[in-house]
Amino acid sequence: MLSEFSLIDRFFARRAAAGRPANAEGGTLGIGDDCALLAPPAGEMLAISTDMLVEGRHFFADIDPEALGHKALAVNLSDLAAMGAQPRAFTLALSLPKADEAWLSGFSEGLFVLAERYGCELIGGDTTGGPLNLCITVFGSVPPRTALRRDAAQPGDDIWISGTLGDARAGLGAQRGEWSATANDAATFRRALERPEPRIALGLALRGIAHAALDLSDGLAGDLRHILERSSVGASVDVDAVPRSAALRRLPPDVQQRCTLAGGDDYELCFTAPAAARAAVEAAAQKAAVPVTRIGTISALEAATDRPAIAWRNASGAPLTLTLQGFDHFHAE
Amino acid sequence: MLSEFSLIDRFFARRAAAGRPANAEGGTLGIGDDCALLAPPAGEMLAISTDMLVEGRHFFADIDPEALGHKALAVNLSDLAAMGAQPRAFTLALSLPKADEAWLSGFSEGLFVLAERYGCELIGGDTTGGPLNLCITVFGSVPPRTALRRDAAQPGDDIWISGTLGDARAGLGAQRGEWSATANDAATFRRALERPEPRIALGLALRGIAHAALDLSDGLAGDLRHILERSSVGASVDVDAVPRSAALRRLPPDVQQRCTLAGGDDYELCFTAPAAARAAVEAAAQKAAVPVTRIGTISALEAATDRPAIAWRNASGAPLTLTLQGFDHFHAE
Repeated sequence: MLSEFSLIDRFFARRAAAGRPANAEGGTLGIGDDCALLAPPAGEMLAISTDMLVEGRHFFADIDPEALGHKALAVNLSDLAAMGAQPRAFTLALSLPKADEAWLSGFSEGLFVLAERYGCELIGGDTTGGPLNLCITVFGSVPPRTALRRDAAQPGDDIWISGTLGDARAGLGAQRGEWSATANDAATFRRALERPEPRIALGLALRGIAHAALDLSDGLAGDLRHILERSSVGASVDVDAVPRSAALRRLPPDVQQRCTLAGGDDYELCFTAPAAARAAVEAAAQKAAVPVTRIGTISALEAATDRPAIAWRNASGAPLTLTLQGFDHFHAE
Repeated sequence: MLSEFSLIDRFFARRAAAGRPANAEGGTLGIGDDCALLAPPAGEMLAISTDMLVEGRHFFADIDPEALGHKALAVNLSDLAAMGAQPRAFTLALSLPKADEAWLSGFSEGLFVLAERYGCELIGGDTTGGPLNLCITVFGSVPPRTALRRDAAQPGDDIWISGTLGDARAGLGAQRGEWSATANDAATFRRALERPEPRIALGLALRGIAHAALDLSDGLAGDLRHILERSSVGASVDVDAVPRSAALRRLPPDVQQRCTLAGGDDYELCFTAPAAARAAVEAAAQKAAVPVTRIGTISALEAATDRPAIAWRNASGAPLTLTLQGFDHFHAE
């Protein structure tokens, strides 16, 4: 069995060092000291987010370790995307039941391929024995005035979604036997569940255009509510406009609705922008090569004491009564 | 059972917000968005460190949750101290088997009392169900040229230790029944194990005086070797000079040696400084109200191909052969 230090060195430190720019002198101090040293570019701030992934809750024990390495970093990068931040660096803390070389090799491969694609350097971490647990903290940079916050939605804003929703939840249900799908569709769903793609390019392109944004990790119904509460506004959403994949459209309508509105694990961006910015939003999406879809409108609260809520309606404008909740990690699903 | 959001809000977010300066406008954006926003003061860098604590490995299941909240943050602040960094902020990711209100109340109390003492703001986090696991990432600020690195030890430097070593390991052994101690001494050891005090003031006072530094988390023998390897130097250490508490001096000599040299969990600083700076080191220690002790000397490697090593000797200068290893989380102890 590898000792902690040789394990870190073999799978993480060496590759992290290999990916560092040659001119790092005076800049980042990474793995091997008590702390890493990092500064944002002049005039910018560091955007910081942390996520913890636990076996049996965020992934299955039999997940391909390469997919897990990808997903563990992807969900963190997704938070940077939602802020309009440029990825810079990350730390990785890892609790492992045993130091399995094949597992570590696959995991680190999935992790570093994604990290290198976004120029995101591993600058520190911790490794310990224990039940499998991954905690990544990610650092991006963003000019403070163009950061996409949750509290900036304005009445009259359009509500937009990137990509399609619901495939990851459909994949979870297919694995659990809640519904069945063709082999092709099941592969599509599984890919969405295991290989989410952070919308970094879209987040960057939306700087100065979008008002509020977040990434959809716990389901549209629950996550949109965070924007509403922090911005003190309401929303009207056309459930038929919520974009879904061709594969998802082959599942029963009630399953589609459950997966798209309360599914979770989508890691698409939900953002608001003024109606006057529609062309700018479309241009940003084209630049980022990510489709975006308008699904609703932000409204003013009728009274300051009103609780922000989502008015669901269908394509013909008829109101719907839905009892949906976002995924909550302390509720048994 | 509390849901995740109300749990975070009740025990963490509200208290974090209460501790935030009123003029945070345009500065830090903390809990409640996809990312926190943070920037170091002009001309400084962020010092970043992450530690993961797992039940049964870093603490016992029956640990007082308040002590655990203290220790989880203290071990991270200790990494800032070892860098000469001023604490600024931290994130907390928490995996919990259940949302136990009494436990969370105690844990958050221990955490925030220490955080508030050092002006260290909780700016984000994650909470999930799962085996108990705590991952804290801490942020300090430091001018890059006066950061206390591991790779800056010079031949001729004195080697210094803050406080005393070995009490935490003595406490672990007493709990395990490896040795026995009086009730008073056992309480001293237990306090060292559960309530380490990060040497922040000393780290700040040593800026511009010390050459290299680190904090002792895995035992002097293993940790000092990190300085030697990164600085490409050797060391001579007088084992009789290594400071130990009155309580530890009441345990058998072989236990004292094992606890002081290979004990771990001390969270004292080990640093090197030129002999000409002895008065400056003493003044810094006095300013920080922490005793410091000289235990040895840094030496040049005889050949560039030599492996950095520690030459152990006793008070009369006679060489000792010790086979000690730092604590390694993948070795069964």
